[in-house]
Amino acid sequence: MLNIGIIGAGRIGKVHTQSIVNYVRGARVAAVADPFITPETESWAKGLGITAVTKDYKDILADSSIGAVLICSSTDTHSPISLEAIAAGKHVFCEKPIDHDIGRIHEVLAALQAPAAKGLKYMVGFNRRFDHNFRAVRAAVTGGSVGKVELVKVTSRDPEPPSAEYAARSGGIFLDMTIHDFDMVRYLSGQEVTEVFVHPAVLVDPAIGAAGDVDSAVVSLRLESGALAVIDNCRRCAYGYDQRAEVFGSLGAALCGNDANSNAQVWGANGTVGEKPLFFFLERYMQAYATEVTEFLEAVEKDTPVPVTAEDGLQAVRIGIAAKKSAKEGRPVQLSEIA
Amino acid sequence: MLNIGIIGAGRIGKVHTQSIVNYVRGARVAAVADPFITPETESWAKGLGITAVTKDYKDILADSSIGAVLICSSTDTHSPISLEAIAAGKHVFCEKPIDHDIGRIHEVLAALQAPAAKGLKYMVGFNRRFDHNFRAVRAAVTGGSVGKVELVKVTSRDPEPPSAEYAARSGGIFLDMTIHDFDMVRYLSGQEVTEVFVHPAVLVDPAIGAAGDVDSAVVSLRLESGALAVIDNCRRCAYGYDQRAEVFGSLGAALCGNDANSNAQVWGANGTVGEKPLFFFLERYMQAYATEVTEFLEAVEKDTPVPVTAEDGLQAVRIGIAAKKSAKEGRPVQLSEIA
Amino acid sequence: MLNIGIIGAGRIGKVHTQSIVNYVRGARVAAVADPFITPETESWAKGLGITAVTKDYKDILADSSIGAVLICSSTDTHSPISLEAIAAGKHVFCEKPIDHDIGRIHEVLAALQAPAAKGLKYMVGFNRRFDHNFRAVRAAVTGGSVGKVELVKVTSRDPEPPSAEYAARSGGIFLDMTIHDFDMVRYLSGQEVTEVFVHPAVLVDPAIGAAGDVDSAVVSLRLESGALAVIDNCRRCAYGYDQRAEVFGSLGAALCGNDANSNAQVWGANGTVGEKPLFFFLERYMQAYATEVTEFLEAVEKDTPVPVTAEDGLQAVRIGIAAKKSAKEGRPVQLSEIA
Amino acid sequence: MLNIGIIGAGRIGKVHTQSIVNYVRGARVAAVADPFITPETESWAKGLGITAVTKDYKDILADSSIGAVLICSSTDTHSPISLEAIAAGKHVFCEKPIDHDIGRIHEVLAALQAPAAKGLKYMVGFNRRFDHNFRAVRAAVTGGSVGKVELVKVTSRDPEPPSAEYAARSGGIFLDMTIHDFDMVRYLSGQEVTEVFVHPAVLVDPAIGAAGDVDSAVVSLRLESGALAVIDNCRRCAYGYDQRAEVFGSLGAALCGNDANSNAQVWGANGTVGEKPLFFFLERYMQAYATEVTEFLEAVEKDTPVPVTAEDGLQAVRIGIAAKKSAKEGRPVQLSEIA
Repeated sequence: MLNIGIIGAGRIGKVHTQSIVNYVRGARVAAVADPFITPETESWAKGLGITAVTKDYKDILADSSIGAVLICSSTDTHSPISLEAIAAGKHVFCEKPIDHDIGRIHEVLAALQAPAAKGLKYMVGFNRRFDHNFRAVRAAVTGGSVGKVELVKVTSRDPEPPSAEYAARSGGIFLDMTIHDFDMVRYLSGQEVTEVFVHPAVLVDPAIGAAGDVDSAVVSLRLESGALAVIDNCRRCAYGYDQRAEVFGSLGAALCGNDANSNAQVWGANGTVGEKPLFFFLERYMQAYATEVTEFLEAVEKDTPVPVTAEDGLQAVRIGIAAKKSAKEGRPVQLSEIA
Repeated sequence: MLNIGIIGAGRIGKVHTQSIVNYVRGARVAAVADPFITPETESWAKGLGITAVTKDYKDILADSSIGAVLICSSTDTHSPISLEAIAAGKHVFCEKPIDHDIGRIHEVLAALQAPAAKGLKYMVGFNRRFDHNFRAVRAAVTGGSVGKVELVKVTSRDPEPPSAEYAARSGGIFLDMTIHDFDMVRYLSGQEVTEVFVHPAVLVDPAIGAAGDVDSAVVSLRLESGALAVIDNCRRCAYGYDQRAEVFGSLGAALCGNDANSNAQVWGANGTVGEKPLFFFLERYMQAYATEVTEFLEAVEKDTPVPVTAEDGLQAVRIGIAAKKSAKEGRPVQLSEIA
Repeated sequence: MLNIGIIGAGRIGKVHTQSIVNYVRGARVAAVADPFITPETESWAKGLGITAVTKDYKDILADSSIGAVLICSSTDTHSPISLEAIAAGKHVFCEKPIDHDIGRIHEVLAALQAPAAKGLKYMVGFNRRFDHNFRAVRAAVTGGSVGKVELVKVTSRDPEPPSAEYAARSGGIFLDMTIHDFDMVRYLSGQEVTEVFVHPAVLVDPAIGAAGDVDSAVVSLRLESGALAVIDNCRRCAYGYDQRAEVFGSLGAALCGNDANSNAQVWGANGTVGEKPLFFFLERYMQAYATEVTEFLEAVEKDTPVPVTAEDGLQAVRIGIAAKKSAKEGRPVQLSEIA
Repeated sequence: MLNIGIIGAGRIGKVHTQSIVNYVRGARVAAVADPFITPETESWAKGLGITAVTKDYKDILADSSIGAVLICSSTDTHSPISLEAIAAGKHVFCEKPIDHDIGRIHEVLAALQAPAAKGLKYMVGFNRRFDHNFRAVRAAVTGGSVGKVELVKVTSRDPEPPSAEYAARSGGIFLDMTIHDFDMVRYLSGQEVTEVFVHPAVLVDPAIGAAGDVDSAVVSLRLESGALAVIDNCRRCAYGYDQRAEVFGSLGAALCGNDANSNAQVWGANGTVGEKPLFFFLERYMQAYATEVTEFLEAVEKDTPVPVTAEDGLQAVRIGIAAKKSAKEGRPVQLSEIA
């Protein structure tokens, strides 16, 4: 029985905790740490049978009965806590991004290379890789149905824009939102990105523009084989969370669409009407979150490779930084320009 | 160049004329006959370059330059004009049904067997056999994708009910509307029907019930192999003409749906919305009508078998009469009970 | 915290146990009874933290700390254990059918009417009522989108036929398989069935026929309003579990289809290819089973009506018996003929 | 009765001729000119009742009984013949592009502004504007369903690459193929393009690359409102002609897909299989070609504006030239840089 510590009991920390309680045999959540712990969170933890609740994540790192931690705290703490957790000999599941700073990500990679870290697992939380639809597209690609990959297309639209304040401190759309799509391009193509060009736009909320960010973008990428990729993003979508992908190649294409609450249709005088896509990431990816954590714990238990590595975390951030640079400078940016 | 006479210049007569003008090379409409010819019809004919317009179809039968006739007149005249046309040595395309009376259909079949009729083509107008969707389902069946046929399902709903008056003189829903579906069951299964049970209902317009007809029905059929079929009918459908079919068998199923004006969708706050099906038979089957007449004229030209025979016309009427009997007597009726 | 006893630890008993463990707060599985308990089952129970495992369900009924039981044992034991459980003052969730014998179902209904049973909940396990797709169709109907209901269509095909031996002792297809579809017709229409006509067939496995059962059927029903319904069944389906429904009415139609593992498509030289439907009921209805049990326990906790009553259980069996009679006698059978 | 001259009897010239013969009342093809006229073409013309067949288009321009010409000759002749035809007082339908040279397009525009040309119609053949699916998307946009337009996406893939030789003399992919997509972006958005960035690639046929062209591209565009657009192109597509579009805006999205020969599906052990899209433009756009010519002739007859103007022809070429420049220089190009 593997004991797990949850560091950060916000929304995603709670989602992962619940997944472990519901779906994972052979592991249990032994402790939860959150600096702003509320009575509600305490009683939520108690309801799940978790009695060790602390304000200080160092309590978890110091607990030798705990073998693995999930870092679900605020983004700026991901890399420092990762370093401390690795030093404490814990397996780590870290929410994306590892850091907005490439140098600090490299520190984490270096720590993982150290002899002391031998055998430790470190996984980054790109949850969409665990979604049933994207997995099926990837399986079609790796299974050969698409042939040689020539184009990857990713559509990613959030139902509602964040506050301008959030946009400002999030690192910007490319490191906060598009980072998932950058990872999806790498995941679906199996290739590295070599060049990025961005057409950014503020079309939804001028306050986001005033805060120095954008709310819409088309991102055009070149991959190492010479193949192409394109991402379109919007921070607001009237019909819900729009998450689709397409991989086109020499033998055909693999595509996937959104999930809805049901596939029921109503046919009437106004047309044939289906349900909107599920509202947002918690609805669309709930099962993916569970699979993600389950596969992390399997990798720990069986000492097998994790499905999303620190290197994957690094590359998505590099592309995000290149995208920011392209948006700012109005020119294509080579990945080789990024550290 | 085959000269064609059109007998009956109502809606369907005009559709066929137009098809020949537009699509058929090697044939031309030489004359049109209609007892109630209007000035509009005369000028419509003139606009198509047809100068011979008459009130009396016998003028057409007497014209030795005319090789084939299309009988598009009122149902009660189909079999007598068929007999006269055969006697006059014309190839005949006859709108469905040949007759509501089995005995009179047999007279037509007998006339076609006569030595004098040798080489004459006689085709019945079951237009749905020429629809691209139903043809693709049939191709899947004959191509083996479905395996051994076990069940045929046909949905057939008209957008608007006819007047009660029309319903009364049409021979009733089973000979007027369902007759197409009976033919579709035979076409898709490649089998004869052996038993019919009907659940009839008046759900749309009580006046149709008062006129002695029904406006809704579920028809359950057994086929010669022991396989099953089921048809559901309604004389009113809020979203347009609903014409779908499904063939299920040992290896899978082949299905088809409706056509719409476009496949465009609008995704918005109220869901994902597509267009309604095309309104009615003229919209849905316009291309099928053209293909139908083209294939009749090809069979004439090349002296090959027609795609829908007088025997097909007979069997659909027999099933219709069995269905009427089942609806009246509230019991399954064997086809062997019908003449 | 409500203590629950599971009576019958076969496949469905295990599914329900797992659902309670995973999803239900405020209730716990306190004991499991099964006459043929295996070491595997014991260790499965232990793994879920259930220590009370017994061969005798009477141990559960005698345990005053247990408030509710789930009867998941073999069909012939459903009604006797129901009676004992009611007598013991337990809330009861009983898998379908309550009994194949109408008289014995009435005994259960009578027991529930007794003053001693006041406040006891009794629910029947028609799991499909809890499926997201069928619920959405029902919501469209009750929400008025369909208008006055005129036709209900249910397609229900199993991926693989049962053994002839199972078919023989299952009560036959109409009480074993179609019973779910009869309930679906009542659920989707909100109406009682008044007449049944069956076209039965043995098309899949002659051994099923030799055992006195059939493996295929079209069932045509009349509802109390005069509306119609039709069910098509097959015990074998090459592409998986086929579970679809359609409700047609004066304002339009509501329809639902199958679920697949993903909505991904592969477009290539052979066409546009999607995934097969999920394999069978455990895959398709896993979430429905969880919702079903959750709603039963909510009804217990809040003392509200159960979503599927003993009366619902009775009516589905009555229709099943009428269907058997129709299949045997080759005629439409009135529900009023059935006890 | 308007007499029409067809200049250029290649594939598209024949398509238009056939459309006029089949669908257009009030106009007739009076003459056909083609410098490389073959006996087959002559007998094709004769079969359609066209007796005036000439090698020299000037015969047509000199014929005062001819009111309108369709310029379907090779691209390099479009603008000179346009000028001559305008000078001869003919209404002109000109296949795209008017010219690859902006200056020569401006000559045509100037000629149309001349007093002598008053009342003459000049239309450019962007056939996709007449496709039922794209029209429905455009109708959703202009009808307000999409709200403020923020993103236009166009997918355009040909089934088979042209020869490298054709690619070399076609003006390159952006003026030969993507030009249709540039027009589609303008048509669907109702906006002008202000900036273009291209990621070009040779992924299909190295010989196309050797000829100085590319066979794949992602084109990212900015529109005058600040909105975005993106086009993806490939010269080879294993499943047929892939022609889709999507317009996303503040209230939702409008999307359309491909047409197939039928909507039939086969469900079997390998999944649910639909038909491939129609093979290429003649199949997909046959009806669109007919509508296009019909609407040109209506504009002539009724003296109303043509649906695609010379200005539309100019703008698409300007974008194409900007795209070529972007592909060559590896940077975003402003439309204002182009003449």
